Amino acid sequence: MRNPIITLLTDFGLRDPYVASMKGVILSINPQCILVDITHQVSPYDIKEGAFILAQAYSTFPKGTIHLSVVDPGVGSPRKPILFVTKNYFFIGPDNGLFAFALKREKLKKVIALGKMAFFLPEVSPTFHGRDLFAPVAAHLSFGIAPESFGRVIKSWNEISFPEPVLRQEKLIGEVVHIDTFGNLVCNIDYKSLLQFSKGRPFVIKIGKRTMRGLKQGYWKGRKNEPMALIGSGGFLEISVRERNAQKLFDVKKGDKITVSL
Amino acid sequence: MRNPIITLLTDFGLRDPYVASMKGVILSINPQCILVDITHQVSPYDIKEGAFILAQAYSTFPKGTIHLSVVDPGVGSPRKPILFVTKNYFFIGPDNGLFAFALKREKLKKVIALGKMAFFLPEVSPTFHGRDLFAPVAAHLSFGIAPESFGRVIKSWNEISFPEPVLRQEKLIGEVVHIDTFGNLVCNIDYKSLLQFSKGRPFVIKIGKRTMRGLKQGYWKGRKNEPMALIGSGGFLEISVRERNAQKLFDVKKGDKITVSL
Amino acid sequence: MRNPIITLLTDFGLRDPYVASMKGVILSINPQCILVDITHQVSPYDIKEGAFILAQAYSTFPKGTIHLSVVDPGVGSPRKPILFVTKNYFFIGPDNGLFAFALKREKLKKVIALGKMAFFLPEVSPTFHGRDLFAPVAAHLSFGIAPESFGRVIKSWNEISFPEPVLRQEKLIGEVVHIDTFGNLVCNIDYKSLLQFSKGRPFVIKIGKRTMRGLKQGYWKGRKNEPMALIGSGGFLEISVRERNAQKLFDVKKGDKITVSL
Repeated sequence: MRNPIITLLTDFGLRDPYVASMKGVILSINPQCILVDITHQVSPYDIKEGAFILAQAYSTFPKGTIHLSVVDPGVGSPRKPILFVTKNYFFIGPDNGLFAFALKREKLKKVIALGKMAFFLPEVSPTFHGRDLFAPVAAHLSFGIAPESFGRVIKSWNEISFPEPVLRQEKLIGEVVHIDTFGNLVCNIDYKSLLQFSKGRPFVIKIGKRTMRGLKQGYWKGRKNEPMALIGSGGFLEISVRERNAQKLFDVKKGDKITVSL
Repeated sequence: MRNPIITLLTDFGLRDPYVASMKGVILSINPQCILVDITHQVSPYDIKEGAFILAQAYSTFPKGTIHLSVVDPGVGSPRKPILFVTKNYFFIGPDNGLFAFALKREKLKKVIALGKMAFFLPEVSPTFHGRDLFAPVAAHLSFGIAPESFGRVIKSWNEISFPEPVLRQEKLIGEVVHIDTFGNLVCNIDYKSLLQFSKGRPFVIKIGKRTMRGLKQGYWKGRKNEPMALIGSGGFLEISVRERNAQKLFDVKKGDKITVSL
Repeated sequence: MRNPIITLLTDFGLRDPYVASMKGVILSINPQCILVDITHQVSPYDIKEGAFILAQAYSTFPKGTIHLSVVDPGVGSPRKPILFVTKNYFFIGPDNGLFAFALKREKLKKVIALGKMAFFLPEVSPTFHGRDLFAPVAAHLSFGIAPESFGRVIKSWNEISFPEPVLRQEKLIGEVVHIDTFGNLVCNIDYKSLLQFSKGRPFVIKIGKRTMRGLKQGYWKGRKNEPMALIGSGGFLEISVRERNAQKLFDVKKGDKITVSL
């Protein structure tokens, strides 16, 4: 039998004792756990960014992995701590939509409002549920304890919506939803939507004052200092500049519009 | 029997080969070790900051954990390499006060000046004891070798003092000792001191030109763009702004005074 | 038998889902792997920087370690994915010179162009070979599968050259090749070259307008705000300032010249 895997995603950064405290709590309960960081550099309080990053990474992990994610501006408030059980994974964190984008791709089996205090630390700080509530629940769950033991089954929870691209005046209008470390501009238009829109016809992509014709097949196909469009590794339309930072070159920010027209 | 856990805390950053070199050395000696980063982003040479972060995180780890911490401006000098054995943990690093805040909370059993060269790497660089001395000692210790085997027992070592709050003219005067990733201002006034001072009476907290009445029960209780005081997850008085960065909003820095008055 | 170790070095940063995706893929294939980050903060597309960091850290790891390194501006192009087998290690990544500095120190046994698609993920994105090609190859290799199974043996590959110091007009002229987190200026002059040049005679080191006589034996020997020269932990000449950031104080950048004269 293999060791249980717990991933961690937070907006805690790497400088403070917060992430290590969660890991210490988990290993104190189940020292067999394998801990893997997804990221701790989600922009502070940015649930949508956390949801997007999680959705890109979670499915690479083995079946049975516990995804523990804490971007939690409402910590200590009446917002529920929650456990989503899907066909392949467990997701533990605050009920604020953080898991929404991942869950769209998963077969949901049941949802538990975490309420069984025996699985929390004896004292729960109103400012750090990551350490005192979510981490110990994840660690106990890693023993194979039944999800229902952790609280009651619930039928509704909070969602956030992914900004879907819209079709207007024969144009497909999307936006930049993520800008990665390389400065690549990841958009909300996925390959399938693009195909449905273009139906094999040539198209033009516009962002700000820049225009691109069609898609490149990889970063290496781009020309010096010129923007190119391609399908990135997450399946979304992406604007990049070969070996340069597209965000800095074109001064684009999250939410900026991108337009595809025939 | 579970695998031994070694935590790492340094000011080495994550860009250079330094942290990985320590891990490589440890795993070359004892590949069974579980390595957990506390942080590697202590401000360069800032022993006090390292001591504070370590003190907040170390006790979440299982009994027997080896805490290997290297913030070591005096590396290569006659400052001693040292091993603290407490009831629950081992602490390995330079004798410069880095462990002082953690040790205040622990029951100290013995202190060893690391001198047995057989447990170091064959060549010890005068600029990198983390890799050549502390890491191999931690790895050997993880086999269960008796602490006394690593050097001689000593009775004195270097301390740094935690800046305790002072009582003056019926005011409790503290200071900001840590500013976290969210911009929360962590002060040196712990909850117990605050209770002893206020004895249940209402109090007012002042930092710079800002005044706050009493404590909030969590970040979510704060009002937009207004500072609030609460007890943070480390048990210290903390000044925060709901979903904002208090440091940036109020331009506060470490060492700035905070005053509690009735 | 001990668990296989895979190290990771990339320019992906820690904020995006990229590194975690590689780890998820590896653990999905072989959950026994121990994953150790070398760094993910190589400057984007900077093969030479990646090569330098890898060369400083790889040899601390146990024999048999798989070093998976991806700084890959040519991802998706005809550049080969490659596996170097040396006496002690495996190196997996793009054929662009990333392993050149490490390989100079290793006894090379064979080189494989990775071409067996059965060891890749079913779909290989042209923008993310780290996840879809290199990670699964590393994971399969960790089972002990013979290197030849992954593709054909090749006899030539791409190199990058380390900028060797030059001797001109009785001066040894080198350059800054790496600037670390502390601001230490690591040069391309190693201790052996320095000894061969000086033959025991006193020497003077010059960088910009600053002059230093001889070597210090450790950072602690430096004087306040004054530059010192010493041999750093990687065996190279290094210019530092005690408990300060030499780069910021002297406004030096990578590639700046350093001169040693008698």
